[in-house]
Parts: sequence; C-alpha cells; structure tokens
Amino acid sequence: MKPYSQLTKEELAALKKELEKQFKEVKAKGLKLDMSRGKPSKAQLDLSCGLMDVLKGDSDLVSSDGVDCRNYGILDGIFDARKLLADMSEVPERSILIYGNSSLNVMFDTISRAMTHGFMGSTPWSKLNKVKFLCPVPGYDRHFAITEFFGIEMINVPLLETGPDMDMVESLVSSDASIKGIWCVPKYSNPTGVSYSDETVRRFAHLKPAAKDFRIFWDNAYSIHHLYEDKKDVILEILNECIKADNPDIVLKFISTSKVSFPGSGIAALAASRGNLADAKKYMQFQTIGHDKLNQLRHVRFFGDMQGMFEHMKKHAAILRPKFEKVQEVLERELGGLGIGTWTKPLGGYFISFDSLDGCAKAIVAKAKEAGLVMTGAGATFPYGKDPRDRNIRIAPSFPTVEELELAAQIFVLSVKLVSIDKLLK
Amino acid sequence: MKPYSQLTKEELAALKKELEKQFKEVKAKGLKLDMSRGKPSKAQLDLSCGLMDVLKGDSDLVSSDGVDCRNYGILDGIFDARKLLADMSEVPERSILIYGNSSLNVMFDTISRAMTHGFMGSTPWSKLNKVKFLCPVPGYDRHFAITEFFGIEMINVPLLETGPDMDMVESLVSSDASIKGIWCVPKYSNPTGVSYSDETVRRFAHLKPAAKDFRIFWDNAYSIHHLYEDKKDVILEILNECIKADNPDIVLKFISTSKVSFPGSGIAALAASRGNLADAKKYMQFQTIGHDKLNQLRHVRFFGDMQGMFEHMKKHAAILRPKFEKVQEVLERELGGLGIGTWTKPLGGYFISFDSLDGCAKAIVAKAKEAGLVMTGAGATFPYGKDPRDRNIRIAPSFPTVEELELAAQIFVLSVKLVSIDKLLK
Repeated sequence: MKPYSQLTKEELAALKKELEKQFKEVKAKGLKLDMSRGKPSKAQLDLSCGLMDVLKGDSDLVSSDGVDCRNYGILDGIFDARKLLADMSEVPERSILIYGNSSLNVMFDTISRAMTHGFMGSTPWSKLNKVKFLCPVPGYDRHFAITEFFGIEMINVPLLETGPDMDMVESLVSSDASIKGIWCVPKYSNPTGVSYSDETVRRFAHLKPAAKDFRIFWDNAYSIHHLYEDKKDVILEILNECIKADNPDIVLKFISTSKVSFPGSGIAALAASRGNLADAKKYMQFQTIGHDKLNQLRHVRFFGDMQGMFEHMKKHAAILRPKFEKVQEVLERELGGLGIGTWTKPLGGYFISFDSLDGCAKAIVAKAKEAGLVMTGAGATFPYGKDPRDRNIRIAPSFPTVEELELAAQIFVLSVKLVSIDKLLK
Repeated sequence: MKPYSQLTKEELAALKKELEKQFKEVKAKGLKLDMSRGKPSKAQLDLSCGLMDVLKGDSDLVSSDGVDCRNYGILDGIFDARKLLADMSEVPERSILIYGNSSLNVMFDTISRAMTHGFMGSTPWSKLNKVKFLCPVPGYDRHFAITEFFGIEMINVPLLETGPDMDMVESLVSSDASIKGIWCVPKYSNPTGVSYSDETVRRFAHLKPAAKDFRIFWDNAYSIHHLYEDKKDVILEILNECIKADNPDIVLKFISTSKVSFPGSGIAALAASRGNLADAKKYMQFQTIGHDKLNQLRHVRFFGDMQGMFEHMKKHAAILRPKFEKVQEVLERELGGLGIGTWTKPLGGYFISFDSLDGCAKAIVAKAKEAGLVMTGAGATFPYGKDPRDRNIRIAPSFPTVEELELAAQIFVLSVKLVSIDKLLK
C-alpha cells in the first residue's frame, strides 16, 4: 500500500468511508478492555502460586543468618533476601538494602527524604528555591508524577536509541546546580523498550554535576524481563562503573520482584554505595522497625537463587512473547509502509511505544476508547502529561489474552488510520 | 521491712554489703537477657503460625469484593481487610485506609507528609519557622524519635492517671499555633499502662487548637491487648466523639496487627475523617500502586472476624499474664514498702513502668547491665532521651520466659536497692 501522504484527498476520503465502516463493525463487538497499565495477566500470576506454598505453619521460619522472620527486627533485610536481590541487581550483597513491597514506594520515599533531609548532609531540597529533575522522554508516568507532586521542575531530555541524549544531560547537570536528579529506566525502557548503550552508562558514571547531591534514579524495573532466550539486551552494571569512575555516590539503583512474583506482594530493594546506604538507613531506622521478613523468606525459599529466578522469567516470557508478537504482527500488517506511525520492537519489558503523526495521539486514544479499548492516556509518557508533539502512545500488551489483543490491535490501527486521515485532510 | 529513708547510714551501709554479695551471686549466673523492647515471645509467635497455612497455591486468592489479590491495584485495601481493621479500630469501614506492614511507618509517613505537603491544604510544616509537638511523658521513644528527626520541637506534658494533663494540653494548643500535634497511646499506654478516661477523650475531641492543622496522633497500639478477661480497660472511641464535637478532622488513629499476628508481617491502618482519608490518599496514590493485598487476605482468612481476633488475643494474654504477674510479684516482695520505687500494674499492653528515686534510673539500668540484663535505656521514655528527674524505667516482660524473668527481676530489684542506697548515703 502507498503511504497515506501520497494519496489524493479523494482517495483519502474514500478510504475514510471504508475505514469508518470497519470501525463500526469492530465497535459493535462490544469490547471492554483496559490496556492502560503494564499489568501481568492471570496466567503469569499463576506461575508464582508456589510462593503461597513454600512457607507453612510448621516450616522453619528462621533465615540462614538465624533470624526468626516472624518477629521484630533486621532493618536491612535477611541475608538470603539481600543476596538474592543483590544478584538480581548485579551488585555485591553489601551494596543492597531490602525494603517493602514496591520499588515505586522506595523511589517516592527517597525523593521525600531528599526534600526533608537532603542526601548525605546536603541541604534539604525543600529549603531550596528551585529543584529540577531531568526526565528522559517518553518515560514512566509514575516517575514524573512523584517529582511533580513534590514541586520539582521537570526538564525533558530526548530518549535516543542509545539512552538519554547524553550531550544534553552532561551540559545541563554540569552547569545548573539546581538539577538534582534524573529518572532512568535503563533496560527495556518504559515505554520505548530502549536499553542504554555501554557508552551511555559510562557517561552517566562519569557525570560531573554542579550539584553534589545530584543522583541518577536508576529504576531497573525490567532487568531480567526478556522476551526471548536468544536475543537479550545486556547493559553495563552502573554502580560498578561509578565506583571505577570514582563517583560511587551518584547512582541509586531500584529493583523489585513486582513483575517476577506478585505485583504488590513482592520485595523491593535499593542498591547503592556504602555512603548512600548509610544515609538511607539513617532515615529508615525512624520509619520502621523492619520490613516484612516473612515475605522476604517466602521469596528466597521459592526462587532459591538467581538461576531459579531466571528459569521463572522464561515462563513469563513464554506467556508474554506471543502477545507482543501479535501486536507487532497487526501493526506491521496494517500500518507497515503507510507512513502514519512508527513503533518499537523491544526484546523485553512491558511496552511497545507508538509514535503517530504529530498532533494525533490524543485523538487516537479517544477514538479507541469509543470502541471500548482503554489505552494509557496520551501524554502520560511526558512530564505534566504534556507530549509536545502529541504523538506518543504506550501500548501495554501484557494483561489481555492473545485473542483480545487481536481485536484490540485492530481497533487501535483503525483509530490510527482514521485520525491520520483527518489530519491529512485538514 | 522499713522504708530505706528511715534506716541509719550504718544500717544502709551494712545492707549494701549484703546486697552486693547477692548481686555478685546473680551476676555469676551469667544471664544474657535483652529486655529492652516490647517483643513478643516465641510462644506468642507460635500462636499465629496458622497464618502461614490459610493461603495455598491453589487457594482462591480473590477477595470478597472480587479483587485478585495477586495483581496490582486497590489503593485503600481489600474490603474484607478494611472491615476487619475498622472493627478492630471501632470505626465504620468507610473511615479506614489500609497500609503496609507497620503503623509506625504510617505515623512516620504522616509526619513526613505534613512536612512536605501539610494537612488538607495547610502550609507544609517544612515551610514554617517552628513546629512543636506535645509529648505526654513518659511515652514511646519511637514516637519522640520521629518528631525529633523532623526537627519538631517537643514539649513534655505529664501523663496522669487519667491520661495527659488536659488543662495543660488545652491551654497550650489554644494559645500557640506552632503546636501541630500530640502523640497519644490512649490505651495501656507505653510505658505506664494508663488508659485515658472518658473525660480525657471528650476533652481531646473538643480541643480548639490555634493551629487548624493540629492533629491528635492516636496510636491505639494496644487496643485489644488485655491481660485479663475479667478486668479490662475500655476507652471511648475518639473519632466518633470528634464527629459529635463537630471536630472530625482533629484526630488520626493508627492501628496494626503487629502484636496480634506477626510483628513486621502484619497489616496497619489509618482511621480518620473523610477529609483526612482523602488527604492521605492524595499522597498515597503517588507513593504506591497498592499495599500487600495477599497479606491482607491472609489476615482476613486467618482471623475471620473480630470475634476470631478477640479469641486469638486471649491466647496471647494467657502467655503474657504469668510474666507480668511474675515481675509484679518480685517487685512487690522485694521492694514493697521500701519507699525506693513505685511501679504500674497495667491490665494490658506490653510494659510496666517503674519510677525510682530521683536521679537513679540511669545508674539502675547500668547496674542491671553489669549482671547481663539489658533494659530500655533510662531516659528513652522522654523526648530527646532526657528524663528530667532521671527516674523512669520501662520494664518489658514479654520476650523472656517466666524463669528468665524471675532472675531478671531479681537483678533489677537488687540494682534498684543498691543504687538507692548509694543515693541515700550521699
């Protein structure tokens, strides 16, 4: 098929009529599908049911370091859990601190801590006139929501194929001491699926920010969330790179088992330098007597070790792969060559990122909703919900079944086509 | 035996010699016992082992309101858990918000929230020159540690037999708008065991603070933690009193199952007015996608309802009662009538509060440590760790066995006697 841009107005109008008929037909199927979030499917949750069986009333509920996991205490997590999440995070066990059920919560608390207490002796951010954050875009809406909630000014930085535009990052952080951090999803980025190149990681490790309390918020949410066994992105381990660059305190790594075991009932961790961990613990010791150690033990007993977790992730991949492939197939078949959209083909993570013609994203999401398909709100992948070109749409294929996805993808491509024609006819 | 104050210097000196011999003997037994915290004993933890059995891999993991507890979502907790903790908190289900594993964490986060965002539209406390809190003393060290950590100035208020000195509370909060809160453990108070009288609760409900964002931090940590079935303290439910007094937003009630099921692996909740809950949720929605719903479901399935929880608490009482009675017995037998100490006889909670002669508490705790008995640091029950009369000592009888307690109590009373004699001989 010819690109839409090469069609005459008459051809576009005729096409529109035909597409509207098709849209009416799929709309009539009465789909009601929420694809707005990166939610695991029921089949994926079933994979982890064994988690409910590893601890019994008569089980030994003592960790290998001799802690009765049923009682108070142990601020930084039981040894076995520290070891497991350190391995997952590719850092030594001494570099890890276990938290509660969600890494988002750890990130929020870390920003909140910086606001009230600063980092490692710096001025609390709430005492400063202006605090800014760099936000690679498109990115994760919940990251941006946290910084917005704390009144932190956000600056868009383009996310390239290799990661954030490092020329821009270096220039901004070295010249502006009010820039205190950057949000990063370094692997299978949300939503583009981009993984940072080795050079990007090294340039991050060598950053020389004007602000001493500048931190890279490294949300390694999809570190082991591959779709294929034979094609995987690998990224450099940043904490080690920072240590080698004599810059150990610049990064805070966040990780969790949310999309490994159960979202909401997993365990989360912070990996960082000795100084950053001590700083975090100084806060944590007032915040809690300790996190849920039974859930830590449950995860340790269920996965055993990192090998066990890798095996488990293969089962997730087997469920997710056909879903991603289904969406790719429909996009390719229906939109390939039309010049009205581009999309990413990630090797892992939870999302496909779609870029429409400029100024069409909001209308496409609204059109899809007409037919019962709820997608992530257009603009959500940008700070303040404002996509300057109104073109980015996050597709989250994990939750629906493959059958539902077939229909959802049809609705989506029809919406893209119809909105694009309207734009071209203007 | 005669009160020590009526003994001559010679009699005291002779007595000291004899007591030093006894101390040497108990010291030789080589006890190593940590009685510093209100930690449940192993036998108590065993009571809740069934918690590990109620959810299995093939269990129905859907809550009664149709939520798959394994997946993301449900910010305010599953209905069944809200109902259970509402009942525990003696409020309607609409007045409750479920949190994570610890009410201390909820209190910390609430103070942190007030610092960065204020309450219900008030100026964030971090933007104010001075923020003060009232602290009934003696009280809970972890409360005081939180306010100290956030740079909040603490003002001691005497805790009377009926609760905090309400004349003082009323006069202070009505005249000083920088006073933003008060820490309360209204039932079986930590450490005195005092429960607030109905009049105290009503006066709290009718407070007219100068600060609109003044809040009563009502930590009902021991709401159902009775020692006796036939003798129980009952306190007025404060949220309802506040509503009746047209003052619904003044109180924040905190509760958890920490000393009901497993400390660190329980569930916690905030009970408050509609306005306060909406305010808390506005914050929470950025902090997390949701708390651990499987643990909520686990608690619901294990306890069933409030009746189940009450029955469970009777088993705790059966274990704790002999321990409290053992300590009371030794204190009465060894110190009764000597005029060198007074102590509380609570009907519930986790502590016995001991007041020595002025200026002796630190020395007594140090003396006991010499013989291997670690107690809560003297002063810990006061803001900044400063007991102005250096006399209050918190006794935590829950963790040791009755046999260990016999020996521990002996060490304690010998320490009290020896230090008191030194004081009288000065």
